[in-house]
Amino acid sequence: ESEIRVMTKSSTVDLVTKTDERVEKIIIGSLKEEFGEGTFIGEESVAKGEPCILTDKPTWIIDPVDGTTNFVHGFPFVAVSIAFAVNKELEFGVVYSCLEDKMYKARRGKGAFCDDEPIQVSDVKDINKSIIISEHGTDRSPEKVTKIFSTMQKILCIPVHGLRGSGTAATNMCLVATGAVEAFFEIGIHCWDIAAGAVIVKEAGGILLDVDGGPFDLMSRRMISANNETIAKRIIKEIEIFPVVRDDAPIEKK
Amino acid sequence: ESEIRVMTKSSTVDLVTKTDERVEKIIIGSLKEEFGEGTFIGEESVAKGEPCILTDKPTWIIDPVDGTTNFVHGFPFVAVSIAFAVNKELEFGVVYSCLEDKMYKARRGKGAFCDDEPIQVSDVKDINKSIIISEHGTDRSPEKVTKIFSTMQKILCIPVHGLRGSGTAATNMCLVATGAVEAFFEIGIHCWDIAAGAVIVKEAGGILLDVDGGPFDLMSRRMISANNETIAKRIIKEIEIFPVVRDDAPIEKK
Repeated sequence: ESEIRVMTKSSTVDLVTKTDERVEKIIIGSLKEEFGEGTFIGEESVAKGEPCILTDKPTWIIDPVDGTTNFVHGFPFVAVSIAFAVNKELEFGVVYSCLEDKMYKARRGKGAFCDDEPIQVSDVKDINKSIIISEHGTDRSPEKVTKIFSTMQKILCIPVHGLRGSGTAATNMCLVATGAVEAFFEIGIHCWDIAAGAVIVKEAGGILLDVDGGPFDLMSRRMISANNETIAKRIIKEIEIFPVVRDDAPIEKK
Repeated sequence: ESEIRVMTKSSTVDLVTKTDERVEKIIIGSLKEEFGEGTFIGEESVAKGEPCILTDKPTWIIDPVDGTTNFVHGFPFVAVSIAFAVNKELEFGVVYSCLEDKMYKARRGKGAFCDDEPIQVSDVKDINKSIIISEHGTDRSPEKVTKIFSTMQKILCIPVHGLRGSGTAATNMCLVATGAVEAFFEIGIHCWDIAAGAVIVKEAGGILLDVDGGPFDLMSRRMISANNETIAKRIIKEIEIFPVVRDDAPIEKK
């Protein structure tokens, strides 16, 4: 259909379309057909009340349309993100950047690829020669927004070469993996936004950390992905952290 | 060559490469061969001390590589921008978005096109349903940066659907022209960044204004391009203006 019907979720700027729901159904249907019943964490299923808990069971983690706002507007970054975890460990991830028509993929221990060409993170270690990517998110509460902008301003003035924002976390992770940017961080992303990208960044030689420098936790909704630890640690110094409710928190807390 | 040698201009984050200079020479050479001697305003020629004054004479306005920082990093928005003005009026503009491989063009009174398909600005009038695009620029002086971030924060919290930044003004103008975003504004851009885009936005049905709501002035280094006046005027309300030296100011003032 040429007209996209837009609905909202957590706020007036948190958009969802029938396409998101339909694509998720198609993906889950195809995976079940190919690999049998399984456990699925999908953005739209969770929005409808399905559990969002990562167990040791083999689990598919799916974002049918990452960058829904971009999709609604025709802004050229929209991605489909599919990851697979076993024993809470991410085994592989696939990100399809739809408008660029690029397929990113990685499997644990096997390297990362874009359209079958190996990709690698940037080798920049000098923060002054870096591009950093982050997003404003869909939460417009003043205290969060103020911290987000304050963090961005401090990073810009380190100084770095520039700040960018594509509007999709999955694409942002792939931009780290290809070396187009040195780091991407965000507080407020969800596990389905970054699960596939996490494998891709790691296999491209990059690292993942919590925004406080601790170990990366897929369900914590906080993450920095970077080309190396030097860049990650320098950015972490500037990040003003604000509280978010974990993806796997009991529903009454959300 | 696979290695890009990077130099800096006005600051450590204002990059230029041999490619910028070489491409400008090629473009000016080809135009002279095809159309005879003429007047040229080119980013790299101006950097070398050539005048940057728009007269009534037929004048080519050229940015050989818009988004040099993106080019250096491999971030996927880099453009070549060429415009032609007579009697200080822009007659046509061409923007080639290199990594997307898209050719945008427009001639006064004849419509705007992307790869020969007609393009049109978005018909969104509700600011709450808009995406706005702006840039942080290469000037890192604290008072300017603070105004830039303050403006962005106020716009985000109107609220709008999102803020984006591609890192190239020429591409940003084309994103307005295709309807992917509702508006792009910036203080600090140069005439060569936006001359071609200005024709493309206008011919796609959009408008151009000064950031104070007055008439657009190509040499003023201030501009908002938008899909319509309603969106432009609402954004203008939030823009905190800071002083910049005009492109056509006497050299001793720069």
